[in-house]
Amino acid sequence: MNTAKIAIIGGGSSYSPELIEGIIQRWEQIPLHEIALVDVEKGHNKVEIIAALTRRMLDHNGLSHVIVSVHFSPDEAIKGADYVLTQFRVGQLPARAADERLGLKYGLLGQETTGVGGFAKALRTIPVMLDIAKKVEQLAPNAWIINFTNPAGIVTEAVSRYSNAKIIGLCNVPVTMHHMIATMLKADYNDVQLRFAGLNHMVWAHEVILKGENVTNKVIEMLCDGAALTMNNIKEEPWSPEFLRALGAIPCPYHRYFYQTQTMLQDEIKQAANEGTRAEQVMKVEHELFELYQDPKLDHKPEQLSFRGGSFYSEVAIELVCAIHNNLGTRLVVNTTNNGTIIGLPDDAAIETDCIIDSQGAHPLAFGHLPDSMHGLTQQIKAFERLTIEAAVHGNKEAALLALVTNPLIGDAQLAQPILDDILRINAQYLPQFSH
Amino acid sequence: MNTAKIAIIGGGSSYSPELIEGIIQRWEQIPLHEIALVDVEKGHNKVEIIAALTRRMLDHNGLSHVIVSVHFSPDEAIKGADYVLTQFRVGQLPARAADERLGLKYGLLGQETTGVGGFAKALRTIPVMLDIAKKVEQLAPNAWIINFTNPAGIVTEAVSRYSNAKIIGLCNVPVTMHHMIATMLKADYNDVQLRFAGLNHMVWAHEVILKGENVTNKVIEMLCDGAALTMNNIKEEPWSPEFLRALGAIPCPYHRYFYQTQTMLQDEIKQAANEGTRAEQVMKVEHELFELYQDPKLDHKPEQLSFRGGSFYSEVAIELVCAIHNNLGTRLVVNTTNNGTIIGLPDDAAIETDCIIDSQGAHPLAFGHLPDSMHGLTQQIKAFERLTIEAAVHGNKEAALLALVTNPLIGDAQLAQPILDDILRINAQYLPQFSH
Amino acid sequence: MNTAKIAIIGGGSSYSPELIEGIIQRWEQIPLHEIALVDVEKGHNKVEIIAALTRRMLDHNGLSHVIVSVHFSPDEAIKGADYVLTQFRVGQLPARAADERLGLKYGLLGQETTGVGGFAKALRTIPVMLDIAKKVEQLAPNAWIINFTNPAGIVTEAVSRYSNAKIIGLCNVPVTMHHMIATMLKADYNDVQLRFAGLNHMVWAHEVILKGENVTNKVIEMLCDGAALTMNNIKEEPWSPEFLRALGAIPCPYHRYFYQTQTMLQDEIKQAANEGTRAEQVMKVEHELFELYQDPKLDHKPEQLSFRGGSFYSEVAIELVCAIHNNLGTRLVVNTTNNGTIIGLPDDAAIETDCIIDSQGAHPLAFGHLPDSMHGLTQQIKAFERLTIEAAVHGNKEAALLALVTNPLIGDAQLAQPILDDILRINAQYLPQFSH
Amino acid sequence: MNTAKIAIIGGGSSYSPELIEGIIQRWEQIPLHEIALVDVEKGHNKVEIIAALTRRMLDHNGLSHVIVSVHFSPDEAIKGADYVLTQFRVGQLPARAADERLGLKYGLLGQETTGVGGFAKALRTIPVMLDIAKKVEQLAPNAWIINFTNPAGIVTEAVSRYSNAKIIGLCNVPVTMHHMIATMLKADYNDVQLRFAGLNHMVWAHEVILKGENVTNKVIEMLCDGAALTMNNIKEEPWSPEFLRALGAIPCPYHRYFYQTQTMLQDEIKQAANEGTRAEQVMKVEHELFELYQDPKLDHKPEQLSFRGGSFYSEVAIELVCAIHNNLGTRLVVNTTNNGTIIGLPDDAAIETDCIIDSQGAHPLAFGHLPDSMHGLTQQIKAFERLTIEAAVHGNKEAALLALVTNPLIGDAQLAQPILDDILRINAQYLPQFSH
Repeated sequence: MNTAKIAIIGGGSSYSPELIEGIIQRWEQIPLHEIALVDVEKGHNKVEIIAALTRRMLDHNGLSHVIVSVHFSPDEAIKGADYVLTQFRVGQLPARAADERLGLKYGLLGQETTGVGGFAKALRTIPVMLDIAKKVEQLAPNAWIINFTNPAGIVTEAVSRYSNAKIIGLCNVPVTMHHMIATMLKADYNDVQLRFAGLNHMVWAHEVILKGENVTNKVIEMLCDGAALTMNNIKEEPWSPEFLRALGAIPCPYHRYFYQTQTMLQDEIKQAANEGTRAEQVMKVEHELFELYQDPKLDHKPEQLSFRGGSFYSEVAIELVCAIHNNLGTRLVVNTTNNGTIIGLPDDAAIETDCIIDSQGAHPLAFGHLPDSMHGLTQQIKAFERLTIEAAVHGNKEAALLALVTNPLIGDAQLAQPILDDILRINAQYLPQFSH
Repeated sequence: MNTAKIAIIGGGSSYSPELIEGIIQRWEQIPLHEIALVDVEKGHNKVEIIAALTRRMLDHNGLSHVIVSVHFSPDEAIKGADYVLTQFRVGQLPARAADERLGLKYGLLGQETTGVGGFAKALRTIPVMLDIAKKVEQLAPNAWIINFTNPAGIVTEAVSRYSNAKIIGLCNVPVTMHHMIATMLKADYNDVQLRFAGLNHMVWAHEVILKGENVTNKVIEMLCDGAALTMNNIKEEPWSPEFLRALGAIPCPYHRYFYQTQTMLQDEIKQAANEGTRAEQVMKVEHELFELYQDPKLDHKPEQLSFRGGSFYSEVAIELVCAIHNNLGTRLVVNTTNNGTIIGLPDDAAIETDCIIDSQGAHPLAFGHLPDSMHGLTQQIKAFERLTIEAAVHGNKEAALLALVTNPLIGDAQLAQPILDDILRINAQYLPQFSH
Repeated sequence: MNTAKIAIIGGGSSYSPELIEGIIQRWEQIPLHEIALVDVEKGHNKVEIIAALTRRMLDHNGLSHVIVSVHFSPDEAIKGADYVLTQFRVGQLPARAADERLGLKYGLLGQETTGVGGFAKALRTIPVMLDIAKKVEQLAPNAWIINFTNPAGIVTEAVSRYSNAKIIGLCNVPVTMHHMIATMLKADYNDVQLRFAGLNHMVWAHEVILKGENVTNKVIEMLCDGAALTMNNIKEEPWSPEFLRALGAIPCPYHRYFYQTQTMLQDEIKQAANEGTRAEQVMKVEHELFELYQDPKLDHKPEQLSFRGGSFYSEVAIELVCAIHNNLGTRLVVNTTNNGTIIGLPDDAAIETDCIIDSQGAHPLAFGHLPDSMHGLTQQIKAFERLTIEAAVHGNKEAALLALVTNPLIGDAQLAQPILDDILRINAQYLPQFSH
Repeated sequence: MNTAKIAIIGGGSSYSPELIEGIIQRWEQIPLHEIALVDVEKGHNKVEIIAALTRRMLDHNGLSHVIVSVHFSPDEAIKGADYVLTQFRVGQLPARAADERLGLKYGLLGQETTGVGGFAKALRTIPVMLDIAKKVEQLAPNAWIINFTNPAGIVTEAVSRYSNAKIIGLCNVPVTMHHMIATMLKADYNDVQLRFAGLNHMVWAHEVILKGENVTNKVIEMLCDGAALTMNNIKEEPWSPEFLRALGAIPCPYHRYFYQTQTMLQDEIKQAANEGTRAEQVMKVEHELFELYQDPKLDHKPEQLSFRGGSFYSEVAIELVCAIHNNLGTRLVVNTTNNGTIIGLPDDAAIETDCIIDSQGAHPLAFGHLPDSMHGLTQQIKAFERLTIEAAVHGNKEAALLALVTNPLIGDAQLAQPILDDILRINAQYLPQFSH
């Protein structure tokens, strides 16, 4: 087997050590000759810390021959890469904090990937991501982009529709639900199988199979009885049992923003007042993590990283690379092109669902129709996503306005214009596409 | 030409004199031998008043030979009918007032045909309507049901999916918009042509053609400048100009409930506190109308009826009957089965759009795709409508709960259950399908 | 009303006098200031004869002020035109005769618009037609192209997919069937209404309505009893009664090539041996017609033209122009973009069906699903058409080969290659797109 | 793991020893307590021979505790079964021979599963199969029907649309192509991966992947150079290289009947004259096989069975059962419900494609659109299949006639009626559904 090169765009992220750990654990299946870390000049300090830690972790595992390179523009990193992992954040955490505060200013949810925040983040991210995709087309046309940059579904769809680069999008929500449901069932992770279909951060587990037996209703009853199923960063607001039973499927934690909007909003308002918004909290954690990472004696992923949220990201990312690299046919839940999988969504829409992953990429398992109760919301969110992509790619302000009105977390035509004005003003430096 | 028989289900409605006037005006094209008025025993008084007024109106126009019959069960009225007009209200205005108050109790819009109110009204109406449709199948299989009972789109879809009776649904929204836009343009009604496509009370005018020229943008600019376009019963909340321009089409007045939810709600709360809800106001108007109708000298439609709302209903209803009866191929906006007209909606969904009407019924003009900005909302409302039909037809409480959660005017899973409980309790006598 | 300019591409056609007669008859509704006749240099003689006859016909009707211009390149004719009628024939009748003989050489049908012949004609015609469409885009962007150049469905689809010019395709098959069925029913043409849906030369009349009554089965029985329904140029081979009843619709005369292939082929072989192929026969008729047209005393359409075939072409063409020009909303059967009208065909496919024609163009009446018995054949022919368009537009030989294999009148992969080789060789001068 | 029961409908088939061998080889993964053999009374002798051989084969492998039961009605066999394998032949080989001779009588292909023969076989088989499915619904509702009865796609679709029994259809064509292509590539079977999508006996291999690399074009070139790829029972007529390259995929051997109709027909005519039709040849082979099977010393599958055709049937059948039984997620090519997998085919159509097989059944990998060159033929064959199912289930003669006309191997409306009359007469005893 030939050795591979991995480029990590946003290599200065605090998550990177988890990724590096994952790479080391799977070394036999994915031997590398180079790990190329890319970040913006502004993040110079962080990416150098990560590079040094990566170096120490590799050396500690007898992998001193592997090159660790640092880049402040993607070209050299992408050239010859086999896998380009994208996990960057345009405007970094302050931009996220601004998004969160903006939602709250208008009495709306201030969340990173949904509503006002997800919209603003998409506007900032998509142009940068398309630039990277264009470089991949030219410099590494056979490479796979593995995207975890949020909003992951929107970003993945933008790349697949506006470039010829090969891309698969990833999220840790499905894998986290899988782990939590296995724990609830006191079962081994591998004995539990979930059937996912929906959009990123809007995905349902339609079936839970335990050792070949359908235990979906059992899991629903456990949730009705108060079993927890959420992420580090989302409040564990309990579900209405009648609703869960009627739905007959397991919503993802992010569904709370849609199904329990008022309660979630009240909680956010309280948190923002007391502990700061999520981004503001994360900034503190990040600071502490980078303190740790600088310790010249640290040669492994520190425990504290697990509190950061985003657990299992690296697990699923590495498993995905491994499945492609070794043509394994592994079943994983990823974001890919619909192509008939969920009937009624556009052929070129990104969806999140169970796929077979091999050297040819992601092959989704045909799902059929979503039930009416999920179909309506999914169509509305997908319409929002497509308007957002149109706005982000072409700097189209009308599409931007319609995107905000189409999103049920905003919805109001009178509110949408001032929100859009604020977003364009606050993020002006990151939104060159609108300055025409 | 053979003379026809018209049955009017809900003949005791205060609107009936408008319908009778319309019938008399078109007499040469639709000569009748019988007008059969049907109402519930409880409405005995009203329907007799209407019957007597109808008699006087016919006599005044030299049509003494036409039979006017009154029925308290539909069978005899439907037998041999050519047209069955349905305009009844299960539970009458008090049920509507209860719907409106219920919405407000939960801080939600309390509107007759959308949100909580439209949902409750559908649950009450669909079983009665299906009973009538079954009788039409048996007793007058060639008859056309012309339905204006609200929520007209949902009711029409329920009949077309769950019976073999022929049905066309009607609403006065498109014709009212047509009249208003003609007035705005200082143009003759017949020189203006609109292109409608959407759902009932969720329909857009996508194009305005004046004497062959596309003046859509001109009309949008007039609306941006504050030109009024609304119904008697909907507040003339002005549209955001940026939003209208981005949309590129003309929303119907009911769209305000979705696009300007907060403003409309505040207005309703104020109105309910000061003048009573819309139903409470209408009850007063109705009382006055029936006082007038009893005047034995009255032999024509009184002017005061025009304040009741619902203008142009009879105009479009009679034009529709006329087009069917005389195989005219008239272009009218009605509610009929989608069948590919709007791509992406179910084949058997009721939609509201321009149709050619002839002896074979309604033939919609193929529309194609709705733009993303309309597609998402339309899909979500259609999903709500289909869950509502499932709930109403089968007494399915889970579908009922999911319908409420799917409707963006409710949306919240924690709110939906107590609302549903209230609806089932308050309307228990009208909802036998749920008492199992 | 402003006066209009009509450009006729292929103005030297022997059909033109019929068109001119139609124009004169509708003068009050479509007043013109110019008729521009365009043809190739090679047809110099013919187009001058037509121009002179047109001049005489106009003068005879008091229309001396109308300009009749002759052009050997389309630019000046198209500039400022309101309607561009396309009725040209690349390679003229000798090319058609070669197509017919080619089919017969391989034991296959040799027909102008289906099978081998239709394919070769499409390859020759589409590039020329796209050139004209590009000129219309530039020189007369508001003009409507009215196309009767065969294969009309394929040519219309090519223009609508590969240019921005507005186009409607026409065929005389539906109007001819309408006239014939009215005659069979001994009814007035206007009292009979047909419901068409399918592809050009592959269209079914799904319903026959006589004064509002569905008489489809009656017409089918008349056909089963031997009533004739065909065109001048298609043999009146009787239909199998069991088949017609099972089909439940009325096939068009061209369907005989698909449903009665062997009988039609035998007849063609006999005809070709005795009287020559259809093109060879037409050449004689044409020669006689142009003799007549030169008579300086002739100032009207001569009777003999009606034997030429193609009757009613001008009737429907002029009615179409009239409906657009006067925004009439006339119901006509034309070739236009599917857009959901027939479910399951591509959105951008050309179909032939009932449309409402007004100033905005053709609005097809939604049809829904074709029955399985028609759906399969329609899909296969549409696949053939799309491969043919791909071949014709891009000079793609692989698509050309697949087109021939996909056409059920050829079908055989071993036969297709030598046929394609012959077509490319024989038509080399007309197929520059393949010489790369 | 619990032991399972397998019922084999058509247990007296000469193929059964192959199946039994497969079962024994996979014993550890699928331990059984009973093998129930079902056949018709008329086949009493054969099924007893098979039962005795099965007994000997089990005993020889130390599986004396397993029950081998014989049944002449399916009820007792199905009761409690986990897997119901259906491989019966209504009317046995003489009915097949009659089908073959019938096609030839009309100058058409006389093939078991396509054209006239496949149609007649479907009419005979579907009613019996639906009876079995109803019994499975009642007596073993959790059992899986594994169908290899031909025409396997049509039969599988009939069951999935007209019963609630769980069914997966199987064919040995894909696995045979897989083996042959691996051989051509001199590669290990497991290193080669094919991507199939189409209909049963109308399936294409769209991609060949060798150790993660796409070698489709290489395989196509090998076929162009004359590499063989066919089945025992289909003539190795070479493909046109130009056609194969244009198609860009690998047709299945049965495609020869459609793409090379004339050559295949000539070959059949010759064979029928010299060696007898395929069924007539098989009858001889069968006779010899049963002679062998009676040998009381025979305790394993005899070599001679491999000449019978139908190789790999048992391989794929047992692998399928194993994947379900052990919830393996194995990728296999089977016939299952489309549900969006191939865009444009009906949701409830049976298709043949790569699926993931686990305890929940077959999950097809979303495929998207077939290219136009395959889409047209596939639609036409699927239309034929659906008309055939309608005819077979309801004894609908009109659907039967339309099915024959829709099949491109017949196509002619004048030929179809006498063929249908012959089929109904010859098979009268097997077609009770038409005797009304």
